[in-house]
Amino acid sequence: MHQKSTIQSRHDKLIQALVAADLDGIVLNPSPNLYYLTGLKFHLSERPIILIIAKNQVPSLILPELESAKISDLVFPIRGFTYGEDPDTWLHTFNKAADELNLCKKKIAVDPRSLRFFEHQFLTNAFTGSKFIDASHVLSSLRMFKSEEEISYMQEATEIAEKALLSTIPIIKEGRTEKEIALELSIQLLTHGSEPDIPFFPIVSSGPNSANPHASPSTRPLKVGDLLVIDYGARVSGYCSDITRTFAIGKIDQRYQEIASVVLRANTAAREAVKPGVHATSVDEAARSVIEDEGYGEYFFHRTGHGLGLEGHEEPYIRNGNDQILEIGMAFTIEPGIYIKNRNGVRIEDDVVVTPTGIRCLTSLPRELITL
Amino acid sequence: MHQKSTIQSRHDKLIQALVAADLDGIVLNPSPNLYYLTGLKFHLSERPIILIIAKNQVPSLILPELESAKISDLVFPIRGFTYGEDPDTWLHTFNKAADELNLCKKKIAVDPRSLRFFEHQFLTNAFTGSKFIDASHVLSSLRMFKSEEEISYMQEATEIAEKALLSTIPIIKEGRTEKEIALELSIQLLTHGSEPDIPFFPIVSSGPNSANPHASPSTRPLKVGDLLVIDYGARVSGYCSDITRTFAIGKIDQRYQEIASVVLRANTAAREAVKPGVHATSVDEAARSVIEDEGYGEYFFHRTGHGLGLEGHEEPYIRNGNDQILEIGMAFTIEPGIYIKNRNGVRIEDDVVVTPTGIRCLTSLPRELITL
Repeated sequence: MHQKSTIQSRHDKLIQALVAADLDGIVLNPSPNLYYLTGLKFHLSERPIILIIAKNQVPSLILPELESAKISDLVFPIRGFTYGEDPDTWLHTFNKAADELNLCKKKIAVDPRSLRFFEHQFLTNAFTGSKFIDASHVLSSLRMFKSEEEISYMQEATEIAEKALLSTIPIIKEGRTEKEIALELSIQLLTHGSEPDIPFFPIVSSGPNSANPHASPSTRPLKVGDLLVIDYGARVSGYCSDITRTFAIGKIDQRYQEIASVVLRANTAAREAVKPGVHATSVDEAARSVIEDEGYGEYFFHRTGHGLGLEGHEEPYIRNGNDQILEIGMAFTIEPGIYIKNRNGVRIEDDVVVTPTGIRCLTSLPRELITL
Repeated sequence: MHQKSTIQSRHDKLIQALVAADLDGIVLNPSPNLYYLTGLKFHLSERPIILIIAKNQVPSLILPELESAKISDLVFPIRGFTYGEDPDTWLHTFNKAADELNLCKKKIAVDPRSLRFFEHQFLTNAFTGSKFIDASHVLSSLRMFKSEEEISYMQEATEIAEKALLSTIPIIKEGRTEKEIALELSIQLLTHGSEPDIPFFPIVSSGPNSANPHASPSTRPLKVGDLLVIDYGARVSGYCSDITRTFAIGKIDQRYQEIASVVLRANTAAREAVKPGVHATSVDEAARSVIEDEGYGEYFFHRTGHGLGLEGHEEPYIRNGNDQILEIGMAFTIEPGIYIKNRNGVRIEDDVVVTPTGIRCLTSLPRELITL
């Protein structure tokens, strides 16, 4: 549960940012942003739920009657507009909110990566004459800067994830399938204290599958000579960790030992490149140039990292061409990789937070290729 | 993985339904519908991924290069339009798809409960002059009818869920918190073979919390005299189960015994009301009238059930006023409840499939209040 002072401070900053962007208010469906601003979690369902924060208005929530208990004991004032089970009546509730909150003919911010077509339609129909505007930058300008409290959740999520992987290692051996390992790792994440909505189902990819950065765990059994990429995370109070380590199954080709050492040097170079004032692209460049210098440039075809927080992927993105300046309190991954199609892949991913002098690295597991 | 014949048949039916609705094609972002039509799963991320199925065109997918391995070994022909890591280049790829697939100035169906604002913006900008139209009915007209294969997955998801609850019962006792029980149940779901993306985190709500149908598990410890509502499900090959059972913790007030027996009669009446040709509203009415006749009408303030399949909530909705005719192969929940605010709640939820003569009930756990 968020503290009243935290909520109030976030609402104040949000209103300031909206005003600065010449926007009258913001509407949010169930999402990390809604949670960030209220502490409320709702399933994303066929029933529209919309948080409205606007200048000179009490924060309001359009929601189903059967969810209304969730707003009865909040630490901050909120106004509820509820509707019943008949979808034909829902627009009426949206109209009532638009009317009483004076939200027609306004410029209203939306979260473009969460608001859905049908929610947008209800809003367009009710908030007559209003324009709905992509306000990603307003939201990320708040969420990119992590407080000590937020960082402590991410640190805890990292520690839980590391313990879970260590507890899973005993079952990782020739003959075990990717799916079996991913399942055991998921169970270990929950057992060690992750919230059950883990950031994503673990990627456990071996041999040729490890050359696909976003592979889903398959029934392929591990074979001697495989590389094994495990990419996964835990969640604490909504905040994610996201870690990748690569293992060798028995004796592997010398070439992959070399590749793993190149990726480790790229990871180190990127971590060392981070400090306040540096552009995101420079961190990407630090990792990429190590890999390019060794002749593997074409085999590293994704960005070096992404922001981390309430979402597994958020601002800032550590990619070529991104001139976002890194500042104290920003949190993101460093995860270079090399992928040799149909053969093997290596990725090494850490979670870092920008400090006055460089980074605090949340991850502590060894990065070297470990043979199992 | 879906079979080629299944995919082909679904695409053919979809095209027929689109043509019948005077629509030229459909666009889908990562969602149960995309999975239904391709067997592909993607994370819903900041990178737009769009499946396009249109008349006289090979199915196409706009996706990031680093996901392209996922479409290299599909059982049906698909055309990929890929983009790199720089968001400034993504619209170019959308334009290319619109151009080569001839999708400007068309009427294009969307899934309103999944397509997001930024995906819609890419489409609007690229598919010049096209109209994007809510096609919920087109999609649900396919997905509402479950094949034997789909029902077998739901049956398996039900059996796994039931075993998981039985394995959790030993820890349910006075002093245990709702969260502890929900966590153990989640672990048991995975251990017994659920896919890790369980349909939703279990609702474990006790005493006053059980009077909130959508409560999140809290740190409240169970007390003697509590009712305990457990609402949860498993997932197999993408398909969900969704079960609720209510328990008594030690000796409870006689009133709640009575309430539990009313809810059980309502559940039975609704199950007995289902057969082909009956309206959804009649099934709701069957449950509701039992509860109203006992004077608890105002304490049953949600619909009697919802469709179940690849989504935890889908068509058909078993609610008052819904004149949807129930037909063979439709699958949904029956879940009446009575909720006495600040005191206790009861809900009993089963999963059923319509058969020629009535229902096949997938759930088999006893429905009576069990004292723990």
